[in-house]
Amino acid sequence: MAKLTQLIDNEVFRAYTTYAAIVLIKMMLMSVITAYFRITRKAFVNPEDTESFGKGENSKKYLRTDPSVERVRRGHLNDLENIVPFVGIGLLYALSGPELSTALLHFRIFTGARIFHTFAYLIPLPQPGRGLSWAVGYSVTFSMAYQVLKTAWRL
Amino acid sequence: MAKLTQLIDNEVFRAYTTYAAIVLIKMMLMSVITAYFRITRKAFVNPEDTESFGKGENSKKYLRTDPSVERVRRGHLNDLENIVPFVGIGLLYALSGPELSTALLHFRIFTGARIFHTFAYLIPLPQPGRGLSWAVGYSVTFSMAYQVLKTAWRL
Amino acid sequence: MAKLTQLIDNEVFRAYTTYAAIVLIKMMLMSVITAYFRITRKAFVNPEDTESFGKGENSKKYLRTDPSVERVRRGHLNDLENIVPFVGIGLLYALSGPELSTALLHFRIFTGARIFHTFAYLIPLPQPGRGLSWAVGYSVTFSMAYQVLKTAWRL
Repeated sequence: MAKLTQLIDNEVFRAYTTYAAIVLIKMMLMSVITAYFRITRKAFVNPEDTESFGKGENSKKYLRTDPSVERVRRGHLNDLENIVPFVGIGLLYALSGPELSTALLHFRIFTGARIFHTFAYLIPLPQPGRGLSWAVGYSVTFSMAYQVLKTAWRL
Repeated sequence: MAKLTQLIDNEVFRAYTTYAAIVLIKMMLMSVITAYFRITRKAFVNPEDTESFGKGENSKKYLRTDPSVERVRRGHLNDLENIVPFVGIGLLYALSGPELSTALLHFRIFTGARIFHTFAYLIPLPQPGRGLSWAVGYSVTFSMAYQVLKTAWRL
Repeated sequence: MAKLTQLIDNEVFRAYTTYAAIVLIKMMLMSVITAYFRITRKAFVNPEDTESFGKGENSKKYLRTDPSVERVRRGHLNDLENIVPFVGIGLLYALSGPELSTALLHFRIFTGARIFHTFAYLIPLPQPGRGLSWAVGYSVTFSMAYQVLKTAWRL
């Protein structure tokens, strides 16, 4: 087990682990918010999900889209499109040996930006709040990718 | 190569590798099932995909949605939303030095739950089969995330 | 920091790092292309995104779908479905100790196939161009998954 423990003992890797877990948990919470709105707004997509409301025509009316549900789903997809690259590139970045302070700056800004993005999407806040928070997170991932490619480049 | 070999020689990491590969392959199979239903139901979304059925109006009728295709696509998206966090958090979890038996328990339950979830979605089984299997997989990932944050916490 | 530096010094891991970063950046560029088409085609999905075009009815007409926007979004989702498994399985594959030349062959073919796939989707090229490039990338990931399971199998 020694080798593994040594990896998690590295300060940069520990920081990466913490922030990656936080943003992945944040992303997973979107599923629960979607389920919450589906149930409170009674807006489902699978016929078998509405059967507890009665059989036949009576339950079919709940097979519909709801603006709040669709909004959460768009936020969830946006998380997949942005948080997943962060987790992947962030791992490579953490292994490329950056300064701890620089690494923490990247991880903290990204995590803050994505949490703000979720609130901006769900409340919703007027633009350009959501757009800017998206751009901040996106830029952080690009900055890490640049650092990774500079360190590891081997085509 | 020594360092890499030592990582894969770790029992927990080997178990993680095996189960992560299995659920990622399972997720990728959804693409093939989608393609199967698109072709057998003749339900496509890109005009260039229907050109083998003839030019113009004759092929345009195949640009449509089909309930079976949409069902598989929802299952695929649900996999992305759940299997991807498992693979990311599971990696950090495997590196955090858990007991082999505890780790195996997590990996096996998650993998079983997601395979059941796919069958529950595609057959489809009556609820709450699909919902429960989703919740089991979700809980396993959360349990690993908790363990990861407890071990690595470094904000 | 020693352990981490040794990982990135491994030739196979450096090659994986380079190609994984490239395909993740390629995937992230789909967001920018989507935004470009949303703005030039004036096709938005969130009411708050159209408010700069004026209040009320005047801006509501821009809440619509556009074929070009939808096409990029499908390409983006296809990337999520294919590049994310490549990054996950590729990491495990790189850690399983393959020959450098074999690993490079896998990474290069996958990266080339996905870049071609994006052009085939966006231009669009006539089929089977897009279908074949999808199948090539898919096969590469399966080949790596097979190698991973052969090396690490531990149920």
